Parts: sequence; structure tokens; C-alpha cells
Amino acid sequence: MRVVFPFSAIVGQSDMKQALLLAAVDRTLGGVMVFGDRGSGKTTAVRGLAALLPALPVIAGCRFNCEPDRPSPACEGVCKHSGVGTTPSPVVDMPLGATEDRVVGALDLERALTLGEKAFEPGLLARANRGFLYIDEINLLEDHLVDLLLDVAQSGENVVEREGLSVRHPARFVLVGSGNPEEGELRPQLLDRFGLSVEVRTPDTLAERVEVVKRRDAFDRDPEGFAKAWKSKDAAIRKKVAAAQARLDAIVVPDAVLEMGSRLCMAVGADGLRGELTLLRASRAKAALDGRDAVTEADLRHIAPMALRHRLRRGPLDEQASTVRIERAMDELLAA
Amino acid sequence: MRVVFPFSAIVGQSDMKQALLLAAVDRTLGGVMVFGDRGSGKTTAVRGLAALLPALPVIAGCRFNCEPDRPSPACEGVCKHSGVGTTPSPVVDMPLGATEDRVVGALDLERALTLGEKAFEPGLLARANRGFLYIDEINLLEDHLVDLLLDVAQSGENVVEREGLSVRHPARFVLVGSGNPEEGELRPQLLDRFGLSVEVRTPDTLAERVEVVKRRDAFDRDPEGFAKAWKSKDAAIRKKVAAAQARLDAIVVPDAVLEMGSRLCMAVGADGLRGELTLLRASRAKAALDGRDAVTEADLRHIAPMALRHRLRRGPLDEQASTVRIERAMDELLAA
Amino acid sequence: MRVVFPFSAIVGQSDMKQALLLAAVDRTLGGVMVFGDRGSGKTTAVRGLAALLPALPVIAGCRFNCEPDRPSPACEGVCKHSGVGTTPSPVVDMPLGATEDRVVGALDLERALTLGEKAFEPGLLARANRGFLYIDEINLLEDHLVDLLLDVAQSGENVVEREGLSVRHPARFVLVGSGNPEEGELRPQLLDRFGLSVEVRTPDTLAERVEVVKRRDAFDRDPEGFAKAWKSKDAAIRKKVAAAQARLDAIVVPDAVLEMGSRLCMAVGADGLRGELTLLRASRAKAALDGRDAVTEADLRHIAPMALRHRLRRGPLDEQASTVRIERAMDELLAA
Amino acid sequence: MRVVFPFSAIVGQSDMKQALLLAAVDRTLGGVMVFGDRGSGKTTAVRGLAALLPALPVIAGCRFNCEPDRPSPACEGVCKHSGVGTTPSPVVDMPLGATEDRVVGALDLERALTLGEKAFEPGLLARANRGFLYIDEINLLEDHLVDLLLDVAQSGENVVEREGLSVRHPARFVLVGSGNPEEGELRPQLLDRFGLSVEVRTPDTLAERVEVVKRRDAFDRDPEGFAKAWKSKDAAIRKKVAAAQARLDAIVVPDAVLEMGSRLCMAVGADGLRGELTLLRASRAKAALDGRDAVTEADLRHIAPMALRHRLRRGPLDEQASTVRIERAMDELLAA
Amino acid sequence: MRVVFPFSAIVGQSDMKQALLLAAVDRTLGGVMVFGDRGSGKTTAVRGLAALLPALPVIAGCRFNCEPDRPSPACEGVCKHSGVGTTPSPVVDMPLGATEDRVVGALDLERALTLGEKAFEPGLLARANRGFLYIDEINLLEDHLVDLLLDVAQSGENVVEREGLSVRHPARFVLVGSGNPEEGELRPQLLDRFGLSVEVRTPDTLAERVEVVKRRDAFDRDPEGFAKAWKSKDAAIRKKVAAAQARLDAIVVPDAVLEMGSRLCMAVGADGLRGELTLLRASRAKAALDGRDAVTEADLRHIAPMALRHRLRRGPLDEQASTVRIERAMDELLAA
Amino acid sequence: MRVVFPFSAIVGQSDMKQALLLAAVDRTLGGVMVFGDRGSGKTTAVRGLAALLPALPVIAGCRFNCEPDRPSPACEGVCKHSGVGTTPSPVVDMPLGATEDRVVGALDLERALTLGEKAFEPGLLARANRGFLYIDEINLLEDHLVDLLLDVAQSGENVVEREGLSVRHPARFVLVGSGNPEEGELRPQLLDRFGLSVEVRTPDTLAERVEVVKRRDAFDRDPEGFAKAWKSKDAAIRKKVAAAQARLDAIVVPDAVLEMGSRLCMAVGADGLRGELTLLRASRAKAALDGRDAVTEADLRHIAPMALRHRLRRGPLDEQASTVRIERAMDELLAA
Repeated sequence: MRVVFPFSAIVGQSDMKQALLLAAVDRTLGGVMVFGDRGSGKTTAVRGLAALLPALPVIAGCRFNCEPDRPSPACEGVCKHSGVGTTPSPVVDMPLGATEDRVVGALDLERALTLGEKAFEPGLLARANRGFLYIDEINLLEDHLVDLLLDVAQSGENVVEREGLSVRHPARFVLVGSGNPEEGELRPQLLDRFGLSVEVRTPDTLAERVEVVKRRDAFDRDPEGFAKAWKSKDAAIRKKVAAAQARLDAIVVPDAVLEMGSRLCMAVGADGLRGELTLLRASRAKAALDGRDAVTEADLRHIAPMALRHRLRRGPLDEQASTVRIERAMDELLAA
Repeated sequence: MRVVFPFSAIVGQSDMKQALLLAAVDRTLGGVMVFGDRGSGKTTAVRGLAALLPALPVIAGCRFNCEPDRPSPACEGVCKHSGVGTTPSPVVDMPLGATEDRVVGALDLERALTLGEKAFEPGLLARANRGFLYIDEINLLEDHLVDLLLDVAQSGENVVEREGLSVRHPARFVLVGSGNPEEGELRPQLLDRFGLSVEVRTPDTLAERVEVVKRRDAFDRDPEGFAKAWKSKDAAIRKKVAAAQARLDAIVVPDAVLEMGSRLCMAVGADGLRGELTLLRASRAKAALDGRDAVTEADLRHIAPMALRHRLRRGPLDEQASTVRIERAMDELLAA
Repeated sequence: MRVVFPFSAIVGQSDMKQALLLAAVDRTLGGVMVFGDRGSGKTTAVRGLAALLPALPVIAGCRFNCEPDRPSPACEGVCKHSGVGTTPSPVVDMPLGATEDRVVGALDLERALTLGEKAFEPGLLARANRGFLYIDEINLLEDHLVDLLLDVAQSGENVVEREGLSVRHPARFVLVGSGNPEEGELRPQLLDRFGLSVEVRTPDTLAERVEVVKRRDAFDRDPEGFAKAWKSKDAAIRKKVAAAQARLDAIVVPDAVLEMGSRLCMAVGADGLRGELTLLRASRAKAALDGRDAVTEADLRHIAPMALRHRLRRGPLDEQASTVRIERAMDELLAA
Repeated sequence: MRVVFPFSAIVGQSDMKQALLLAAVDRTLGGVMVFGDRGSGKTTAVRGLAALLPALPVIAGCRFNCEPDRPSPACEGVCKHSGVGTTPSPVVDMPLGATEDRVVGALDLERALTLGEKAFEPGLLARANRGFLYIDEINLLEDHLVDLLLDVAQSGENVVEREGLSVRHPARFVLVGSGNPEEGELRPQLLDRFGLSVEVRTPDTLAERVEVVKRRDAFDRDPEGFAKAWKSKDAAIRKKVAAAQARLDAIVVPDAVLEMGSRLCMAVGADGLRGELTLLRASRAKAALDGRDAVTEADLRHIAPMALRHRLRRGPLDEQASTVRIERAMDELLAA
Repeated sequence: MRVVFPFSAIVGQSDMKQALLLAAVDRTLGGVMVFGDRGSGKTTAVRGLAALLPALPVIAGCRFNCEPDRPSPACEGVCKHSGVGTTPSPVVDMPLGATEDRVVGALDLERALTLGEKAFEPGLLARANRGFLYIDEINLLEDHLVDLLLDVAQSGENVVEREGLSVRHPARFVLVGSGNPEEGELRPQLLDRFGLSVEVRTPDTLAERVEVVKRRDAFDRDPEGFAKAWKSKDAAIRKKVAAAQARLDAIVVPDAVLEMGSRLCMAVGADGLRGELTLLRASRAKAALDGRDAVTEADLRHIAPMALRHRLRRGPLDEQASTVRIERAMDELLAA
Repeated sequence: MRVVFPFSAIVGQSDMKQALLLAAVDRTLGGVMVFGDRGSGKTTAVRGLAALLPALPVIAGCRFNCEPDRPSPACEGVCKHSGVGTTPSPVVDMPLGATEDRVVGALDLERALTLGEKAFEPGLLARANRGFLYIDEINLLEDHLVDLLLDVAQSGENVVEREGLSVRHPARFVLVGSGNPEEGELRPQLLDRFGLSVEVRTPDTLAERVEVVKRRDAFDRDPEGFAKAWKSKDAAIRKKVAAAQARLDAIVVPDAVLEMGSRLCMAVGADGLRGELTLLRASRAKAALDGRDAVTEADLRHIAPMALRHRLRRGPLDEQASTVRIERAMDELLAA
């Protein structure tokens, strides 16, 4: 098992870290898109998050990570079940050059050749079930794979109709994409499918830059030692996430807050209703993470930029302009 | 079995809901095309409709959903028949990335490899027989697949000539397509193949938006509870559809109404005669759904926009202009 | 067996109906190209014609429809012959998405896999032998398939050199193509390969339109009843075609008429000599269908537009101009 | 065996007929390219020529048509030899859609699958050895196939390096191509590879046109009877060709004629030396066909247009201009 | 084993030689990109370096070059381990035309066909583990392969998801690319992934040119003799590299130097933090190679051009301008 | 064995003939590129050269033409060795349409299918080892194959990484390419890879043209007789080449000549050092062929145009200008 850079040791980048934690608390948020230069630590953050998430209870031996009491029809007869177990929270990396058959799953060639039977070999989407699916540089992925992934991410189900196979299995995961807008734009329609979007930048103070380089060099030279030094900070975050997950269902969302959300979306002109749903859910997750019992207007205000910015019919490059627009709308609504 | 959002719980969107119900009453109407933004509930409506349709009587074990007394030649010798049964009304989703072999059916590889025989493995078109075939974002499907689907939808038969196979089997289904005109236009020739077209929009009143978000959030947090609350409303619709199907053949269509339909099509310049046939059938289905015995001019007037709008040689974007043209023509014809 | 709309119940469209009957009488005419809007009944006419043609005497069990006394070399050893039988006049539909291997025939995979022998599996061209091959929307077929079909239609032989197979078998059929010039033009060189061309239009009188809709709706609601009502009219046509076929060889073509044909082609500037041959044959077929013993100038005049119109180096859209040119040339020649 | 239209019954087209006969007398001439409209009888002429050529003595059972005393290395061990036999002069048609494997030959799948051995399955090039290879509409063939065919035609050898096979076998044939310059030009470099080029046109006198139509109709209605009527005329041509072949090696080519040929080529600016070689050989073949013992300047003059016209760096469309240039050059050289 | 041109016998080209030695000392430097004309000795240098690097201790028989005490999970059960051994430092050449399956590894066809099992056949990335991977003319490699290689080079792990295989194995190597900017540019984003970049030129003094030609000719005529003559010089370099590797971890990097590095990167506007990390590591490697205990500002200054030049948002062609910019920034920082 | 046109019977074309002989004497010269019109005898010359080269001593049965005392690792265990033998000097023709697998070698399908083992089937590159590889019309070869061939020609080794194979074997051959600059240019970067370049033209005197046609016609009519007549002239050339090969290593190259070569390259601006190496080697080969013991400035002057012309950053079309530039530079250097 490779040691990863601890999530808590990441210097700065608070927006990205918060968005990932919110998605970890409520996985129905719709995924996180991270914009920014290469080398600004996006991949490091996702892998660090994976390492601190609580383990999942699963049916032992299930290749779809099914919950102990709920085997999916697809896994029955395919997986060899052997009681209840746990698995580290899956964070699946989409490697460059992954073929569609490995992503969605395909005919199990070995069984076809040796036993002459047509069995389903689960793919990355199965492995990502109940966890995270991370696509570094989503710009470089072929369009049809991106469409397919977003479709599955939203429906929570992988429907395979190919090579004589007809299978559907649960594939509920948080999609995390990273991309550099300078290397090829994401189609606006696809951006809308992500729940939250954040931007990361290379730090611009000398102190931060030196700190980043020092921690990275220290980690690269002695990964185990470095990880050990940050272990308790990571544990604190893990605990906070678990507490928020437990509290989530009980959080109250006052009607006034709900209406404020709809008003805000109408005011800034966000298409569709996905923005409103995301606002509601991300605000609730934030309240849970903060240890509170109800969502407030302040939560909404805090969340609004990362939930709406990428839905405003503008390129991702003028995000600051978008943020300003959203904040001004909030001010007006609150003043009203 | 996944719980779906109840059809009756959909807020607003009365055009779309009516078009789907009309198609459910008379499946020869020629399919429904739904235009509109992502996130406006198109997929939800189709899946909801599927859940409330009455079950079909079928030959048990038939993979083509053949009627108890009418096995198709294709299924004889292929399906293992075992008396009469019922099946939920099929609503088949076309997954993104479905390959042509799985859509039309193909050589059964397993039997070819193990038994060395050339047998037909039915595809999605077989599974959709006597039900609905839903294509979300028909714009993203490859042109040759769209051509093929429309061809089969119209002829009611799937003719397969590939891989040494030569099979034809019934494939009578209502094609429901959804698309966002902003993401790529549908060729005008293809639009004409759809019986009805409707447009959905994001609701624009605060009350409606808040209601949509509330119901959606309620459903996502407790699907079973939510579905239970709307069960009787769905049942009422199911009953109305079944009654209309039973009454359909007895509905009278006065010659004056028929002539009015032809006059209207000539007046607005709809190509071909598909518009007239659709007007006739959709008006009859509407009368049946309303519990009446004869079609009236009012039915025609009500139906005309959704039956003709997309046949007027204009892009789908100026549908309102089209609707105005159709209504003005109706006014003039009635005044005459 | 699907009931088809009776040929005799088609409202109007006399040109198309006559061209198809002429081709049924003399199958060496070179095929019929039907231009026109979707929904104007082209497919209906071809399928209706198929249903009323007399049955063919064949070698029973022959997959190439060989005549009882003339087995083709290709079928010997391949087909299991069992005396003499009859088969309904084949009218083969080219389905969209048909692959080249199914059209021309291919290696018989089943025999290759199980017996390890290389046998020929006949394709659609074999099935169409001595009948009709119908291609709806020939514009949508890939160019190389169209080239191939026209080549076979003209030579009457299907030459297969692929997958290690080297087969030639008779493939004498009437090619009927339909196309909408607005959806993509046919290359002029290909048009010349068709013997006759006709145009169909949506009827433009109220009475005709209402009649079409009424008959279609009646047929769709009760196919068997409708077909029965028109049975005797179809039978009368079948008889007339059979009589014309029997009489064809005895029809006299006066030299003056033959010269008139050549003069006409030179006057209007039709390329090559296919126009003249078609004029001769179609006029002879018309005389036969009319029950006469000799071809007259009136036959030539009647046939000239459908035999020459598409050979005048003009797009199919200005067919009326072409027709006028042809008629004016006839007037001048007769006046001379 | 299909009856073909007799070569001697072709009306007019003397250039084309002569070029084909010259190539039949000396097969090293380098092939014949026939330009002209569809329907002007190119295919008919080639097939007619095939039918009247003398039979070839061959090793019986040899799939490469090897001469009785000279088996090629490729056929030894592959063909089952059984003494000496004869075969009709091969005239191989390149069917549209022929795949490269069938043209050049390929792995014998049947033997590979059943015996597990890698044997060569000869293709069309083997079958054409010592005969003619006819490509109707060479414009429609893929470029790489045309390059390959011209390469083999010139070297007289088919070199196969594919699918693990490494075979070379004799493939000496006369390549006859036909094309319509209006349907796509032939690259100038390829034209140069053909020995002779001729042009055919639709006849432009009434008498000829009527005669063509009459003969064609007569043939189509009774092929056997028609062929019988022209049998003796075909036989006379066959005899003349055989006599010319026998006399060819003894024909004297005076140095003055040889120099005149080189002078002519330099005068008109034909690239390379292929023009001169072709002039020499075609003139010699003409003298042989005329029953003379030596080549004369008149032979050269007669042959020059068809041997040089297509080498003058001009499109095939201004062939008349080319012909004029060649004739003027001849006049000047003779005057000198 | 082919004798290669000795590294120490390369005339001039000191930048290239130093960059390669630095990468040999610290393999986490991130690879070396060599720009320059063909024929300037890039390939020779890389192959020469390979020949003088110290041998690696490995698990004998391991196909991933795993360290004796650390078998990777991928090799367990795949490789037949047999104690500890050594292997020459791997320098893998990427041949033009290498297919993706051979680069990343693929299904072991032999085992699949004979044993019916699905085993992984390691590819070039496995073979390069713990060594160098050299891509001559990286411009000619397909983009997706370049992306893939850079991705693996950076993560140190090869993740394979294809053909039903799901394997990850260590692939830590120094990527060395060569390219001629005139033959096709490298995308700026990819340049940033290389740690160091150097430029080589054809020597421009007569003496050097004659020396190069003499040594090359001498080597080509007697490789063994030539190599022997330079053996001790190569051995001296090998010793220096080994000493530097041993000393590397103990080298001190004063905070002032670290800050100077960050300041420099901010001043010249290098994107991301890769530049700073590379500066730190390459300076440390230089101090080690020079036999010192601490990094100095002079090291930084020496390294800066090759570490930063290609990150300045300019084409590789104006590298001199970039170098000037970097040096000027150093001067200003030191003056401050 | 096909009789080829004797090398000594080629009329004129002295540059081409000399370049080929030089390459035959020193095979490390780097190949010969022949520019010129089709039909100017390029192919004839290469095939003629092959026929007169001395036979090679080889390991009998070796498929890589390995030298008796030096089996390559690739052939051990693959080839069945049986003592020492000789083979005619290989001159391998690259047929148009050769596939990459046959060029570089590939999986031996026969052994894979029958024995289930993964063995290497050597390709054309193996067969060309120690001989010539001739590519007629290199312009028509796909770019990636040309890159690959030049790469192998230069490194002298064929590295195969495909289909699960990983093989490297010696492939030292003289690459001879021919091309017509009018049919598609060769990329300048590739030209530089050829050692020498020459141009051939159609002869422009009457006497030469008549002589060429006479000899060609004589050869085509009686190949054996013609070859016999020129046998002794070919033998004389063979002897001269063998003597030059034996003498080559002993030829002295004075430093002054070496420096003159470098000066010349700098003066005319030839990129890289390949020009200088080629000058050195070709001058040495010329001295050897002339029977002398040392290279002189006259040799250099003679060789310079064919060694440098194609490296001057100009298209091959203005070769004369290039030649003038080279000669002028020589004049100035000698005057100095």
C-alpha cells in the first residue's frame, strides 16, 4: 500500500478542501470539479482525502462493494459472498488510456475462453461504487467517456448493453474531476452536471511556497515518517466527517432559507433546478460539518459561489466575475 | 427494483404529461419528442409513466413480449414458452454507448462458442416491444442509430441482416426522445417522424421552484415513503388510461372534424400526411382520455400545436411562433 | 405473414403505379426510381405490388430462386433441391444498417466453426433473384453499397470475391429506389442506371387528402378487413400483369417507332444509349399491359418522360422543365 | 457459362476494338485504357474479346495458369498437377468491393482452421495470369489498389508479404481499364503506365444508333440465337489473332522506323521511354495483325495517337488536341 | 551485447552530459528533455550513460526489476523469484511503432491461448523500472502515448486497465526525451513535466568537428578497441555518480537557498511549483556530484537555466532569451 | 530465378551507377536516394546491381543471414543452423501494400495456432540483413513505415515490441529509395538520413534513346541470350567491387582531406555532422574502387555533390543550384 501525502498537510487551498469534505458528507451532492494549474496539488488532495475516509461495511467478497444487507441483483451469482466485512473507502483513479470495456465492465474473457460462458467482468465503475471516482485532466478524456461517466454518476446505476451482455449494477460515487481550462475547455453542458466547482492556484506568498516545497521534499524523502507526523490531524478530520454524516438527516432547513436559495438562482439566472438542489444539500452538509442543527443564510452565502459559479453561462475563466455576481445578488436579497 | 419518482408528483409540465398519456392510450401515435433544458424533469416523467402503466399479458418466457395468442415467428424455437403471464409495461432506456449489436440484437456468442450454432440474441428493440423506448439526449446518439430506431418505430418490425443472421421480429413501441436544442439540432426530416412534440421549461415562479426542490429532496431522502404518499394519485391515472384504451375503438370521428384537420394542415403547410393522421389519432385518444364518445373541434384545436408544430419547416427554437401560426389558422378555419 | 396495404387502394399516384407495373411486366427495364416527400406512400406502393404479383415456379429448396429447369452453378451442392415448387414473388427490403456481408453473401460462419468448411451463405441479392429489391431512402445508403447494387442489378449476376470465397450467382431483380431529393442528392451517374423515374407528391385536394387519411386509418385499425374489401381489385391487376408478361414477346415494334425513339434521344441530348433501350422496352411493356399487339408513337410519347427525364443532365428537382423539354421535342418530331 | 455479346457484332468503335486486338497479339504492350461515357459498350467489348481468344495450354489443375513446361515455384506443392490441359483465355473481372486479400491472394482460412497450416490461397491476380484483367470504372477503385495493380501488371509478378505469408508468383496479364473522365480523373502518373489509350463515344448517326439498339434488344431476347448468327465472324477474328501471335517474333523493325519513333517522342515531349517502347511494340503487333513482315512508317503513324496521347501532360479531356499535336509532329518529321 | 560509444568520448555538449548525470544521481528529478538537430549525438549520449551506470541489485528473475527486499504485488505470483541478483541499469529504448500494448503491458497471449488464463505480460514500462526510458524524437510519438508516459513517469506507477486486466506495478524511471523543435513542437504543458531541459548543437569550430568525425569513424571501424581506450575515463564517471548517490541524503540545503529558489521562480514567472522542487533537487544532486556537503547559491545559479527555461511560457526556440531572463533575475536577487 | 537486365548494359546514368557501387563497397555509407522520372531505369539498376554482387558467407539455414561465426541472439533457437553456406547478396524489394507486420516481423501465426507458442516470424528487415532494401517510390509509402525503415537502417538493428513479442535482431542493409519529386515531396528531415543522392533523367540524345529502346526490346524478347552477352562485363564490375571491399580498411585518409571536408560542410551550411562522415566514407570507398591507397582532394570534390546536395535546406528540385553552391565552395577552399 503506497503511503499518500496527508490531507491535513496540504498548505492553503481551503476551498478545494472544503468542497471535497462536503461531498464526503453528502455523496449525492453531484461531484466536485477542480480547476487550476498543473502542479497545484489537485491530485494530492483527492488521494489524501481517500486515505482519511472511514472504512465502508460491505458484503465480503462482493465486487460491487454492496452494503451488507442489500446485495445488488448484478452481484448475486457473480460474487462469492462470505459474510460481512469492511473495505477502505474506494477512491478509483481513471488511468489515461483506460478503455471503455474496463470502465463499464465487459465480457469476462477468461471465463468465455475456458468455460465458454458469458459472464460479466466488473469495471472501474463497479469498483468506485459507494466511493470516489477521480479523473485527472478530464479535458484529455474522450468526449463519449465523459458523457458516459456523468450519466452514470447522476443516475447511480451502470447500464451495460454490449458484447451480448445486458447488466445493470449500482454505481453511486462522487465524481471528482480536475482540469486546466487552458488545456481545453469543458463543454458548458457538462459543467452543469457537477455539484460544486472550486479553483486552485499556485500560492503567491513566499512563505507558503517555501512551506509547500519543504513539506513535499520531506514527504518524498521519508513518506512513512512524514505521514506519521500528520496522523493525528488527519484523524481529527476523519472524526468530523463521520459525525457530520451521522447528523446529516436531522439537520433542519428552514423554509426561508429554501426560498432564499430559489430566489438567488432566479436572480443570477442559473439554468435548471440543479443549482437549487445543490445549494440545499451543500448548505446542509456544511451545517453538519460545523456541528450545527439547522441551515442558516450564512451557510447559503458561503456555499453559493462554489455551487452556482459554473452554471452562469460563462466560461470557467471569469469565475471571479461570476463570484462577484453571486455575492452581489446575495447582498440585494438580504437587503430586501 | 428501484423506486421511481411518482408521475403524479411532477410539478406543472402539463403538456409533457398529456402527450405521454395520449401515447400510452394509442401507441400508434408515432412517439413523443420532448424539448427542453437539462434538469427540467424529462427523464423523471418517462420513468414515472412506466411505473404506472398497466401490466401486459404476455407469453411467459417470451423474450419479445409476444401476446399470449400470437407468438411471432422469431420467438418460436428461440424462447422457452411456458403458458401465459404478465410483465410490467416495458420502458427501455437506451444507455449512452449502447452498441448497434445490443440495440438490434446479434449473434448469441455464448451459443456460438459452446454449441457452434448460430442463434439470435434479442436486443433492446425486442425488449421494448409493446412498450416504450426512451432515448435521453437523442442529439448525442449517432445518426445511423437514430435513423435505424425511427425506421423500426414506424414499421413496427425489426429486420436484422448481419453476421450471417436474417431475422425479423415485432418491435412495436412508443419512441420517446428528449433533447436540448442548444446542444445540437435534430435534422428536420427526423422531427417529422415523431407524432407529438412538447417543450418543457424550468418553472419560473418561486412557489413552483421551491415545491420542486422540496419534493425532489423529500424523494431522494426517503423514496419509499414519498412513493407511498402519491400511490393513490398514480393509481387514478392508471385507471383513466386503461379506461381510455378500452373505449378508443368506439370513439366517433365526424367527417367535419376530419376535413377540418386536413384543411388545417394544408393551411399551415405541413408536409406529407403524417400530420393529419396524428391529429386524427391524438384527438381520438384525447376524447377517450376525457371519457367522451366523439371527437370535437375543440379536441383538434387542443392537439394541433403538439401534433403540427414540429412539421412546419422551422427550427424547434421558434416553436412559439409555430404555435401562433397554428392557432391563427384554426381561428380562420372556424370563422369560415 | 403481415397484411399489407392493397396496391389498388392507393389514392392517385398513377405515374408511380404505372412505372412499377411496367417493371413487373418486363424486368429488364432497369429499375424504377421514385422521388418524393416522406409520407407520400412510396413504401406502401412497393409492398402492395409485391403482394399481388403472381407466384414464381422455382426449384424447391433453392436459396437463389432458380428456375425449375435451370439450376445455377452456385446453388448446386449448396441448396438441397427437392423437386419443383412455387414461391411468392420476392420483394426484398434493404434494411438500414444492413452490412455488406449480408447484402452480397458471405462465409457461412456456422459451417466454418462447426465443420471447418468454407461455404457460401447467400445474402439479400440471392433472395431478390427474379423479384424486386427495394431500397427506401437510397440517399442514406453508403455510396459503395449503392454502386455495388446498381452494378449487380445491371449485370444480373452477383460476383463475390471476399473472405477466401469466390462465387458468382444469378441476381436478376428489379431495383426500386426511393429518395427525397431534399435529403441529399443522388449522383447523376447513378440516376442514369435506373430505367424509369417517377415523382410522387402529397395530394393537394381536400377530397384526396381526407380519402388517404380515412383509408389509412381504416387499414391500421383492421388490416384484414380492409384487405379483404380490396381483394378483387388487386386480383384484376394481377391478371392484367400476367397476361402482359405472356404477350410481351409477340409485340411488334415498327421500325418507324424505333427510329422515332432514337431521334427523340438525340434531340433532347440524353447521354448513352440506355435511354433508347428503355424507351423501346417500356413502350413494349405498355402495349402489352394495354392488351395491344404493337407499339405506337402514342406509347412512346406516354413513356418518354419517365424514361428520359432523369438522363438530361439536370438535377431531379427541375423535372417538370425536363418533361416540358421532352414533350416539346416529341411535338417537333411528329410535326416533321 | 453465360453467353456474351459477340465481339464482331459491336457497331463502330474501331479504335477500341483495334487496341484490344493489338494487346491480345502482344501482351507486353502495357494494357489498354478506355475512356468514354457509360453505356458506350466498353464492358461489352472486353467480355466479347475474351470469348474469342484462343484457349491456353496449361498445366492441368494449376491455379496460376502455368505453362505446361514451366511450373512457377509458387504453384509447386500448392496445386495438384495432372498433366497438360487447356483453359479458356482468362478475362478476370474486378468486382466492385473486391477486397485486397482476394485480389492479391491471402491466407487460406479453411486450411488454417482445419489443418492449422499456413497456405496461400491464390487471388484474382493469379487467375488473370496469361490473360486479361478488366477493371470497369477504374476511377472508383481505391488508390492503393490501383497502384498495386499497375505495379504487378508492369513487373509481371505478384509479391505478397502479408499475414505471415511471403509468396511471389507470375501474374502476366493485360490490364484493361475503363473510366469516365467526368466521374473523377485518373492521376497523370497512372495514365503513363497504360500502353494504349482509346476513347469511345455514343454513336451520333441515326442509323448507327438504331442498329445498336436493335442488336442489343435482339441479343437480350435470344442470346444463343444471336451469338450463333455471329459465330463465323468471331472465328475469323480469332484466326487472325492467332496468326499474328505466331508471326510476331519474325517481324522486322527497320532502324529508320525506330529512330522515327524516338524523334516523334522527343518532338511531342512524351516523358520517359515507355512511349517509345510502346510505339515499337504496337506497330510490330499491327504489322503482324495485317499479315505483313516488317513495320512501316505508316504503322507508326497509325499507332502514334493511341500510344502517346495520354503521355503528353494534359488531361484526358483534350485528347483531340493531343492527337492533333502528334499528327502535326509526324507530318513535320516525314517532311524533313 | 552491442558495444556503445563511450560517454566520456563525447566531444563537448557539457550541458547535456551534466543534466544526464544529475538525473542519474537523483532519479526523482523528473526527466531530461534534450533539444537539438539530428546528428548532434543525443542518442549516443543516452546509450553511453546507460553503459556506465552501476548495476542494480534486484530480485533475480523479477520482470519488474524489484528491489531484493521489496517485491511489488504485481510481480508476486507472476515472476519466478530466485534469490538476489544484479542487472545492468536498464535503459529502455522506445522503438518507433511500439504499440500501446507493448508499452504498458498486455494480456499474455501465449498463456491465454494455451492455458486459458488471463495473465499480465509486462511491457516496456516494467522493464524501465529503476532505470531510464529513452524516447528519441518524442515529437513523432502519438500524443496519447506521450501523455501516458509522462503520467507514469510522474506517478512512478503503471496502472493498466485493459483487456480485462487490472494491474498496477512500480515504474519509476528517468524519462529522457529528445526532439528537434523544427520537426513539430512539443505542447507547452508537456514540457513542464520534464525536470531539466538542455540544448545540443552541432559543434561550430573546425577542431571540434574534425575530432567528432575522427572519433566516430574510429569507433565504427573498431568498436571494441575504441571502447577499451576510453574505459578508465568511463569508470571514473561511474565512481563519481555512485559516490554522489551515497552522499545525497546527507546534503544540507540552507533555508536561504530554498527561499532564493522560490524568489527566483516568482520573479521569472514559472508556473506551478515544479520548478522550485526541481531547482532544490538538481542543486542538491550537483553538490553531491561535486563532492560537497551543502547546496550553495552558486549551485542554484548554475542549475536555474536548465531547470526553469522550459517553464517560462515561451517556445523552446527562444531559449537563449529565457536563459538571459533567468540570469538577470538571479543577478537582481543576489544584489538585493 | 528471374533473369534481370544486366547492370553493365544500362545506357548512361553514370552518377546513379557510381553511387550504388560506392554503397556496395562501404555499406555504412547510409543508403542512396535516387530521384527521377518514372521509366528512367531506377528499378532496373538496383535489380542489376543485386545480380552482380558477390555471394555472402552465412550460417546455413539462418533466417537473418547471420555471419558464420556470429549468430545473433535472435536467431539462436529460432533458426535451424546447419553449418556454413553462402547466399546471393540479398536485395529485398518492398512491395506496395506490404503490411508493417511483414516488414518488421510478427507473431508466427502457424506456430501460435498449432503449437500454442509465441514465436517470431522474421520479416523483410531480417531478410535484407547484410544486403540492400529497395523501396521504389518511397513517396507512396506511409510516413510511419518510412520513419521506421530509416530508423532501422541507421541503427542497424530491428527492435520489435508488438503482439507480446520483444525481439531485437541485426538489420544492417543499404537502403535504396527511389522517388519522383513531382509525385509528392520527401520531408527534408528524411532526406538527411540518406548518405548519397543522385538524379536520373530520360536520355536526351537520339542515339542514346534508340540504344535504350533497342537493348530493352532485345532483353524482353530473349532475356537469357541478352544476359549472356553482357556476362563478362558484369563479372568485371563484380571483381572490382570485391577488390575495393578488401582494400577499404587500408585506405589512408590524410588529415588535410578530413579538414577540407569539415571546412566544406561549414562553408555550405550542411546541418549536423552526417555530411562530413559521409564525405569521408564515400571518398574512401571511391579511392578503393579506383584501386588507390589514399583519399585525395579530387575524391572529395567528386563525391561532394552527391553527399551534400540533399542536406542544404532546399527542395530536391533545385539540385543543380545546390551542386553549383558546393562546387563554388570547393573552388574557394582550394584557392585559399
